[in-house]
Amino acid sequence: MSKSIQFKGYALVDPSNWSDLQVREFKPKNFEPEDVEIAITHCGVCGSDLHTVTQGWGESKLPLVVGHEIVGTVTRVGDKVSEFKPGDRVGVGAQIGSCLSCKRCKMDYENYCQESIETYNGEYPDGVVTQGGYSTAIRAHERFVFPIPDKIESRDAASMLCAGLTVFSPLKTYGAGPGKTVGIMGIGGLGHYAVLFAKALGAEVYAFTHDATKVNDIKKMGADHVINTSENKDFHKDLSGQLDIIISTRDTYSPQTPLGDYLSMLFVHGKFISVGIPNADNPLPQIHPFDLMPNGALIGGSHIGSKKECLEMLRVAAEKGVKPWIEELPMKEAGTALRNLHDNKVRYRYVLSQDLA
Amino acid sequence: MSKSIQFKGYALVDPSNWSDLQVREFKPKNFEPEDVEIAITHCGVCGSDLHTVTQGWGESKLPLVVGHEIVGTVTRVGDKVSEFKPGDRVGVGAQIGSCLSCKRCKMDYENYCQESIETYNGEYPDGVVTQGGYSTAIRAHERFVFPIPDKIESRDAASMLCAGLTVFSPLKTYGAGPGKTVGIMGIGGLGHYAVLFAKALGAEVYAFTHDATKVNDIKKMGADHVINTSENKDFHKDLSGQLDIIISTRDTYSPQTPLGDYLSMLFVHGKFISVGIPNADNPLPQIHPFDLMPNGALIGGSHIGSKKECLEMLRVAAEKGVKPWIEELPMKEAGTALRNLHDNKVRYRYVLSQDLA
Repeated sequence: MSKSIQFKGYALVDPSNWSDLQVREFKPKNFEPEDVEIAITHCGVCGSDLHTVTQGWGESKLPLVVGHEIVGTVTRVGDKVSEFKPGDRVGVGAQIGSCLSCKRCKMDYENYCQESIETYNGEYPDGVVTQGGYSTAIRAHERFVFPIPDKIESRDAASMLCAGLTVFSPLKTYGAGPGKTVGIMGIGGLGHYAVLFAKALGAEVYAFTHDATKVNDIKKMGADHVINTSENKDFHKDLSGQLDIIISTRDTYSPQTPLGDYLSMLFVHGKFISVGIPNADNPLPQIHPFDLMPNGALIGGSHIGSKKECLEMLRVAAEKGVKPWIEELPMKEAGTALRNLHDNKVRYRYVLSQDLA
Repeated sequence: MSKSIQFKGYALVDPSNWSDLQVREFKPKNFEPEDVEIAITHCGVCGSDLHTVTQGWGESKLPLVVGHEIVGTVTRVGDKVSEFKPGDRVGVGAQIGSCLSCKRCKMDYENYCQESIETYNGEYPDGVVTQGGYSTAIRAHERFVFPIPDKIESRDAASMLCAGLTVFSPLKTYGAGPGKTVGIMGIGGLGHYAVLFAKALGAEVYAFTHDATKVNDIKKMGADHVINTSENKDFHKDLSGQLDIIISTRDTYSPQTPLGDYLSMLFVHGKFISVGIPNADNPLPQIHPFDLMPNGALIGGSHIGSKKECLEMLRVAAEKGVKPWIEELPMKEAGTALRNLHDNKVRYRYVLSQDLA
C-alpha cells in the first residue's frame, strides 16, 4: 500500500484567489527510520490556515497545501518506530519536527524548540517543504504523531490536535481545575474548546462573547456564566479581580480594545494568555505598567502544546466525553470552509473528510 | 514620650519648585488600638517620591511629606498590638493600610488589597491624609510594621522596605534560586537590590546596564555577568531563550524600546516583570503576540510585597549579609537627594537621617 500512495492535496496556488484551491501533487519528506506515514481521513480547518492563505502572517510558499488538524490511518512505519504500527488510528497537529536534542525538547517543551518545523509552509533541513493535511497523506517523525483513543471519533479528534491543544496547554500550565475561575474571550473554534476543556478540568467558566446568537450554544457547551460584551461595556467591573486565568482567542485587536479592562478581572498573579495570533500588522493594544500592578497580573503567549500535553488532553477528552461542535464537509469544499471562516460563519469548527484518495 | 511627639516633616508645597521642601507640621492618623507609633530615624529616597513630587503620576495632595522607606523606634503601641513594644526597632514601607478582611488580605496578598492605602498621598477612610517618612514620626497598623533584625543597621534596612521588597517579591514569586537564571534590566536603586537578592537566593545573575561607569560596581555587587547594552545593541541574541526571569526596573520607555528583544531572552514560560512604574503618559512599548509565542513568555507587573515576604527578605538579608550600596544624607538635604535622583547621580540609594526631632 505504502509504495502506491500518491501525495496530493488541495493547494493554494494564487494568493489573490485564496479560496480557490487546486489539486496538486507534492513531494513528501524523505522517509526515515523514525517516520510514520499516514493516509489522511480527516483534517480540521484552522484560523492559521486562513492567515496563511491570505498572507496575513507574511508571504507563503507556493503551491501550498495547508491543514494541521490531521487524523488518519498508519500505512507504513520506519524501522525505528516503536509506538505505532500500520492500521493504527493516529493524528498530527501543527508541529511536525524539532531538533529533539535541546533542553526544551528534553523537557517536554518541544513545541517551543527553536528549530521547530511547522506542519505546512515549513521546511526540513534538507529543503523539503512541509505540506499540510488538505491532502491524501503525510509523513511525520513519531514524536509528532499522536495515538487517537478508541472512544474519540476521528472527525472529533481532528480539530483537537491544534485548536484543542492550543487552549488545553495554557489551561493546564496555569492550573485550571477545581476551585479556579477561567475566563474565555472569544468563542470560536479555539474558544469553544477552551470552554469544553476548562469544564472537563473542573474549573468555573466565564465565557465572553460579543455575538448574541452564540449565547445559547455556549451555555449548552457547559459555561457557567456567559457574558454578552456588546450588551454591557462595563462587564469587567462586576468581575474585578475574580478570574485566575483568561484565555483570549481574539486574533484581531484595535488600539481601542480595552485590554486594561480585561486585565482588571484577574486575581493576584492571574494570567491573560493570548492564544490568538493576529496578522503581523496587528499588535496588542498598548498597556501601561499601571494596568499590571494592582493585581500583579501577567500577559502571556502560548504555542500549541507538547506531545505530553496532547496525550493528556486526549485522555481527558476520552474520559470526560468532550465532544467538539463541528461541521463536516468533503475536502473539496475546503475553499468554502475557509471563506466561511473568514466571514465568521462557522459553528464552531469545520472538519474536512477525505475525497481525494 | 508619645504625648509630646510633634508630627512634622519636609513637605512639598509647590510642585513647580519640587526640590525645595519646607518644614510643615501635619496631622497623623487617629491612634487606634492596633496602631504603632514610630519615631523615625531614617528614610530612604525612592523613585516614587520623585514621580510624586514632580506630579508624574498625577496631581498630589498638598502640602505633602513623601518617603516610604522608614526605620525608627517604637514610641507607643495600642492596646491590641501584640507584635511590638516601645523601644523596638521597626520599619514601614510603601503601604500603610488595607481592608484586612478580603480574600487577598487573608491570603497574604495584602499588598494587592483593592482598598490598599499608600504610606503618603493616600487617605484613610476617615479622611486623614497619609504623610510619609521625611518626617519626625509616623503611625501605622501593626500589620504594616516590620521588625528589623539586629544584624541589619537601620540605615541599611530603610531602603530595603520599598526598593528591596519590590524586587524580592517577584524574585521569590517566580522562583529565583539555585539553577535559575535571572536578568536585571537597569541597575539603580531597585536594580542593585535585585542583583543582591537574586545572588542571596542562589540564582545566576545577568545584569544589564547602559552605563559603563556602573560596570565595576555591579561586578562587586556580585552579578555573574554584566552586559553593557550601549556597547552592543544585539546583546539579546547571545542570550536567546536563556533567562528564567527578567526584572525590569526601567521607569521610562520609548516606542523604540526593544521590548521584544528582551522577551526573546526568556526560557519557556519565562517572566518579564516590570517593577518600574513610568509616568502616567509613558506606557510600555507595543508588542505583538508573536513576541510572546516562541517561548510562551509572560509580561507581568508587581506591587511592592506582603508582610510575609518582607519578613522573609529581612531574614535572607540578615543571614546572607546583604548590604545595600547607600549614601546617607541629613534629612534637610532631601531636596538635593531628589534632584540628584532626577539627574541619575545616585549610587545607588539615598538614605536620609533624622535631623528634625
